[in-house]
Amino acid sequence: MEIKAITEQKSLLAQLSPGKRTRLRRLLFEFGPGSGTLLFLPIDQGIEHGPRDFFPNPASKDPEYQFRFAAEAGYSAIACEIGLASKYYPDYAGQVPLILKLNGKTDVPPANAPISPCNASVEDAVRLGADAVGYTSYVGSPRQEEDFVQLRGVRQDCDRFGMPLIIWAYPRGEAIDKRGGRDSFYAVDYGARIAMEMGADVVKLNMPKFSDKDKDSPAPYNEMDVSQEEAIRHCVESAGRALVVLSGGSKVDDEQLLAQTRMILEAGGSGVIYGRNVWQREWNAGLEIVEQIKEIMLSSVRRMP
Amino acid sequence: MEIKAITEQKSLLAQLSPGKRTRLRRLLFEFGPGSGTLLFLPIDQGIEHGPRDFFPNPASKDPEYQFRFAAEAGYSAIACEIGLASKYYPDYAGQVPLILKLNGKTDVPPANAPISPCNASVEDAVRLGADAVGYTSYVGSPRQEEDFVQLRGVRQDCDRFGMPLIIWAYPRGEAIDKRGGRDSFYAVDYGARIAMEMGADVVKLNMPKFSDKDKDSPAPYNEMDVSQEEAIRHCVESAGRALVVLSGGSKVDDEQLLAQTRMILEAGGSGVIYGRNVWQREWNAGLEIVEQIKEIMLSSVRRMP
Amino acid sequence: MEIKAITEQKSLLAQLSPGKRTRLRRLLFEFGPGSGTLLFLPIDQGIEHGPRDFFPNPASKDPEYQFRFAAEAGYSAIACEIGLASKYYPDYAGQVPLILKLNGKTDVPPANAPISPCNASVEDAVRLGADAVGYTSYVGSPRQEEDFVQLRGVRQDCDRFGMPLIIWAYPRGEAIDKRGGRDSFYAVDYGARIAMEMGADVVKLNMPKFSDKDKDSPAPYNEMDVSQEEAIRHCVESAGRALVVLSGGSKVDDEQLLAQTRMILEAGGSGVIYGRNVWQREWNAGLEIVEQIKEIMLSSVRRMP
Amino acid sequence: MEIKAITEQKSLLAQLSPGKRTRLRRLLFEFGPGSGTLLFLPIDQGIEHGPRDFFPNPASKDPEYQFRFAAEAGYSAIACEIGLASKYYPDYAGQVPLILKLNGKTDVPPANAPISPCNASVEDAVRLGADAVGYTSYVGSPRQEEDFVQLRGVRQDCDRFGMPLIIWAYPRGEAIDKRGGRDSFYAVDYGARIAMEMGADVVKLNMPKFSDKDKDSPAPYNEMDVSQEEAIRHCVESAGRALVVLSGGSKVDDEQLLAQTRMILEAGGSGVIYGRNVWQREWNAGLEIVEQIKEIMLSSVRRMP
Amino acid sequence: MEIKAITEQKSLLAQLSPGKRTRLRRLLFEFGPGSGTLLFLPIDQGIEHGPRDFFPNPASKDPEYQFRFAAEAGYSAIACEIGLASKYYPDYAGQVPLILKLNGKTDVPPANAPISPCNASVEDAVRLGADAVGYTSYVGSPRQEEDFVQLRGVRQDCDRFGMPLIIWAYPRGEAIDKRGGRDSFYAVDYGARIAMEMGADVVKLNMPKFSDKDKDSPAPYNEMDVSQEEAIRHCVESAGRALVVLSGGSKVDDEQLLAQTRMILEAGGSGVIYGRNVWQREWNAGLEIVEQIKEIMLSSVRRMP
Repeated sequence: MEIKAITEQKSLLAQLSPGKRTRLRRLLFEFGPGSGTLLFLPIDQGIEHGPRDFFPNPASKDPEYQFRFAAEAGYSAIACEIGLASKYYPDYAGQVPLILKLNGKTDVPPANAPISPCNASVEDAVRLGADAVGYTSYVGSPRQEEDFVQLRGVRQDCDRFGMPLIIWAYPRGEAIDKRGGRDSFYAVDYGARIAMEMGADVVKLNMPKFSDKDKDSPAPYNEMDVSQEEAIRHCVESAGRALVVLSGGSKVDDEQLLAQTRMILEAGGSGVIYGRNVWQREWNAGLEIVEQIKEIMLSSVRRMP
Repeated sequence: MEIKAITEQKSLLAQLSPGKRTRLRRLLFEFGPGSGTLLFLPIDQGIEHGPRDFFPNPASKDPEYQFRFAAEAGYSAIACEIGLASKYYPDYAGQVPLILKLNGKTDVPPANAPISPCNASVEDAVRLGADAVGYTSYVGSPRQEEDFVQLRGVRQDCDRFGMPLIIWAYPRGEAIDKRGGRDSFYAVDYGARIAMEMGADVVKLNMPKFSDKDKDSPAPYNEMDVSQEEAIRHCVESAGRALVVLSGGSKVDDEQLLAQTRMILEAGGSGVIYGRNVWQREWNAGLEIVEQIKEIMLSSVRRMP
Repeated sequence: MEIKAITEQKSLLAQLSPGKRTRLRRLLFEFGPGSGTLLFLPIDQGIEHGPRDFFPNPASKDPEYQFRFAAEAGYSAIACEIGLASKYYPDYAGQVPLILKLNGKTDVPPANAPISPCNASVEDAVRLGADAVGYTSYVGSPRQEEDFVQLRGVRQDCDRFGMPLIIWAYPRGEAIDKRGGRDSFYAVDYGARIAMEMGADVVKLNMPKFSDKDKDSPAPYNEMDVSQEEAIRHCVESAGRALVVLSGGSKVDDEQLLAQTRMILEAGGSGVIYGRNVWQREWNAGLEIVEQIKEIMLSSVRRMP
Repeated sequence: MEIKAITEQKSLLAQLSPGKRTRLRRLLFEFGPGSGTLLFLPIDQGIEHGPRDFFPNPASKDPEYQFRFAAEAGYSAIACEIGLASKYYPDYAGQVPLILKLNGKTDVPPANAPISPCNASVEDAVRLGADAVGYTSYVGSPRQEEDFVQLRGVRQDCDRFGMPLIIWAYPRGEAIDKRGGRDSFYAVDYGARIAMEMGADVVKLNMPKFSDKDKDSPAPYNEMDVSQEEAIRHCVESAGRALVVLSGGSKVDDEQLLAQTRMILEAGGSGVIYGRNVWQREWNAGLEIVEQIKEIMLSSVRRMP
Repeated sequence: MEIKAITEQKSLLAQLSPGKRTRLRRLLFEFGPGSGTLLFLPIDQGIEHGPRDFFPNPASKDPEYQFRFAAEAGYSAIACEIGLASKYYPDYAGQVPLILKLNGKTDVPPANAPISPCNASVEDAVRLGADAVGYTSYVGSPRQEEDFVQLRGVRQDCDRFGMPLIIWAYPRGEAIDKRGGRDSFYAVDYGARIAMEMGADVVKLNMPKFSDKDKDSPAPYNEMDVSQEEAIRHCVESAGRALVVLSGGSKVDDEQLLAQTRMILEAGGSGVIYGRNVWQREWNAGLEIVEQIKEIMLSSVRRMP
């Protein structure tokens, strides 16, 4: 594992207020793989997709499952919304850090102009002992004005309470579709920068992907020829001093999952956020894959916060 | 009557704040059938449908009728909106608990993008001595963003005042209609999870039903072959540590009503909410059927809160 | 004049807070015909229709006319909006009670989705020494959600200040038109219930009327065969413990006006609100007809508040 | 100059709070022509039309021009928006009263549903030492609900601070166009009444005009045969105890300007608001015409406030 | 360098509050070229356009680049949004003044009715030690009402905290396109006046340009025949006592850049805001061109603040 000089380590967190630094260091160094990496377990699928994501592993329908798993497997934090945080987190308080996801929406209404409304506040997060809050921003949505205004309130409360702000930067909406789509390098890169500009301490991105639609992206993206790892590195740079975690999305096979994890860390990402890829497995299989993920992470880290 | 171990009983209410636990236990153990069950009398039809629901039993037009009935028949609580709570509840204060329903709407304007606006606050409920508040969430409505924001305020006030939150989880809107409809297993199951994720302590659902339109539901619902009782059990599980009550809807015959009550309790539901099925009857007939319902409930309870 | 037992009298006002009872009793017993009846003079036509209503009696264009008339003729109260209340009421303070009408709109823009915006607050009413506030709710309008939210604020302020709330319940909008129209028995009856459910202490209704369009009303209204007096009685019952006053609308002949007054009181209404029918007359003619109206009211009262 | 009895003089201002009376008397008696008249200089054209209005007299582009002119020529007050009031008024503080115009808009976007958003508050006016605030209400606009709500806030702050409220009552929007148009007698008369009903202390109207479209106005306006002076007198009556000032609009010739001034005052108007008609002239020509206007005003006054 | 008399210098800042004057003088005299000029470095392209603007000079993707450059090259201030200000400005605190840009938007959604939502507050700027705030107003946009209301809040906070307000006055929207376009003399001139009327202390404009579409501008713009320098002078006059800075837009060649700088200053502009024109160059080339710009500015200044 490559270790950066202490001065370099200092740079990314140096500007953070004491409250933010205290909480973020807990995620980076005291829980999860440690050494400045982040391994998050998201359990917001019940809002975003409904219970259907739980059928492949019926035991996973009980939120208790994910909380116990996050604690036992040694995650950096578990990310969930207010209902789960209120009714399931108390039993695990202190055993695994909590990221209170502040907004969310169902996938039922049309998604051409999405916005994710807040169902909880930073103050709720403080009250519950959370170490960070999460906010989903639909970058490029026709309703981005409302989104930015809502996000401003969250960001200001984070500054007030010293609470780290993690932005789920999700390019969305008709105009994004016309410029290469939500997962295009252009869109993900723009999302990374926007999140940092809006005050994120950590940015959560989906993996940039390549397709024929990339030719519709603005220059120079429409003519760039880069590997996925290079694209990730660009996105990490666009996020500047904000840390970047990438997500796995729907379930992939083990080899791909581990290879992707290594690539993310080597491209400068600070970690991964793996949900269905892990908890749609049987309990012990889940523990095993997490163990492998953590080893890969620690051996591939390229950027210390 | 099956009695669960004290430790199991503790689990569902254990995470609640003292205020919520005090009030909710009143409904579960001190009033109504007791033993951790819930039997609610709703009298919000005057808003939702207008006076037309009262013509089958003209005496029922006077709200006094339902209040006296709820007290005499021994309900766990009566649920109504601010006008009735202000002008009729005072005479029954302490004799039957009050659930102040905070929002409501007429059925006059088009229902393609419904939202139910709040006409009262949690503070109103505290002032009136209510033991819970009720909130109708139109899950999946195109206006769900506004709904979630409004619900956030209610939920936060409930946390502040220690007031139990009962969410009427009603899937609605065009997009729900295209996915199997408001009473489909898919929709009711999603609604149950959303209510819990948003912070409900009790979830009120309509009975899941099966129809040809189920094939339009997302996988795996479009191909599942389950009984109604199994479907209810799934919904109860989706609501997690939130308790579930199911409603009867329009008037059905006695046998069906009792059979349904038994099925609900055996599937893990914590109770029922019966309005027109009861107060559209003559007074004594109403008292009799409630007596039978309570017996069935106590003999069928499968899940202690 | 039929006098009810003291216990019956007590029932309708019994649940009101001291402030509401103090003020409402002033209207019911100290001013106007007395004996628990209500005779209101509305002077909000300048907003709702513009000055054109004043041309039949040019003297009536000066608001001074209606204020002096209400005081001299002995009305229970005069109802007007903030401008008149600020500039004309002070000279009559203590001589005739004031109902501050809190919202209003012109009849200029299209009326398919009406809402009546508040131009004054309950606190304004307190400051001006008013004994009640008036609020127009367009029941069934596509914008009823905004209406209910606005009304909630007014109702809560009324509770806070002990100020009686009079709701002008006006069914309106496209959906009402398709169900029999704004003056149909169905619509007026629904309006009466909604007003009570929303917390009205007094409900102002327009006279229910019958037409061919009644067959478009929901059951059982589409097939009911009742007299106008029976319809009014139903509406009074739907308003429960809220008192009901009915309005005369545009000018009718004397006999009809008096007959209608008698019918309203005998059907359980608590009073009438007569504007143009009175102040579009010459001064002395106005005083004379009011004298007759008051006699009829006192001789026909059927329901003591 | 006709002088009214002291009792009559008292009537119009008698109901005003001490703060309003103090400030309004300054405009009526201490500055301008005096004797209870009002001569206002508006310099809001830079917002409403852009700099193009200043080209006929290039010197007028510098706001200093209008401020110095208002002070030297002896106006009752100068009316402008926050930017000019902040940067140019301080040099003339105490030399000419300030009316802070609180809202304004460009003429660029389509005007079918206008609303004029507030860019300053009554508190700004207090801070700047203004003696009145101005508010433009687009009477009859499809967005009048928002307008009334915004105006309510302004009116309440005026009551709180004792600040006179001048409403620019401008009938506007598609529905007004269909009823005779913005300058029709019907529209101006309705506007006058609305302004008074909403709490104006002074109403600013445009001159009512006659056209073929008057036949589209509601009865009795569609068939009335009145002179312009009679029409103005009607509008003054509709404004009740609120004072009325009329504007000149775009530049007309001297004779017409003076004749119009005389007519306005003789019809009961309290004054005029002349902008481009004056400051589009060369400096000395401006001073001269103002002198003539003031003479005419003082010799024609018919109604003392 | 032409030096104006002290009295003239005093005029433009004389009406400013002590807080505004303190901060603005820092930009005008203590940093940058000095002598009352303004040279701003904007780094908001990451929000407005995304990372694509950084590819011509990859080093510029790291915000550290622009901050260090602004400090080393000796700018009057650097303008950026909250994320950069929070994470990068602290290292340069006191070395180069900060303009906190309060609003911004991506260029992804359609721009026919733009509004730029605030992602930070004036209080954020105070907390960060900024010497001014920036606000983008899309003059003429169909959503200008919302814009003006938002701007009012910013302007009032600036007055409260003594914070200079810089308005980016950008004519935009369909109606502007129909009147000659966003860069037409008409549009830029209107924008300059609006910014001043809304309370700007400094106005940022784009260069007015001429095209065939000018004939669609309102009179007299549609027939005016002026040079670009004269047009700028008009715009500077329209901004009155607000100072004017002009921007360079996309990268142009050196000669043009310097000529344009001279023209702006000679036309009365107080300075320039050059972003991509400078930081898309290699480091030393950037420093050199800034040196030349500053010399030109100091030798061409025509108007002292």
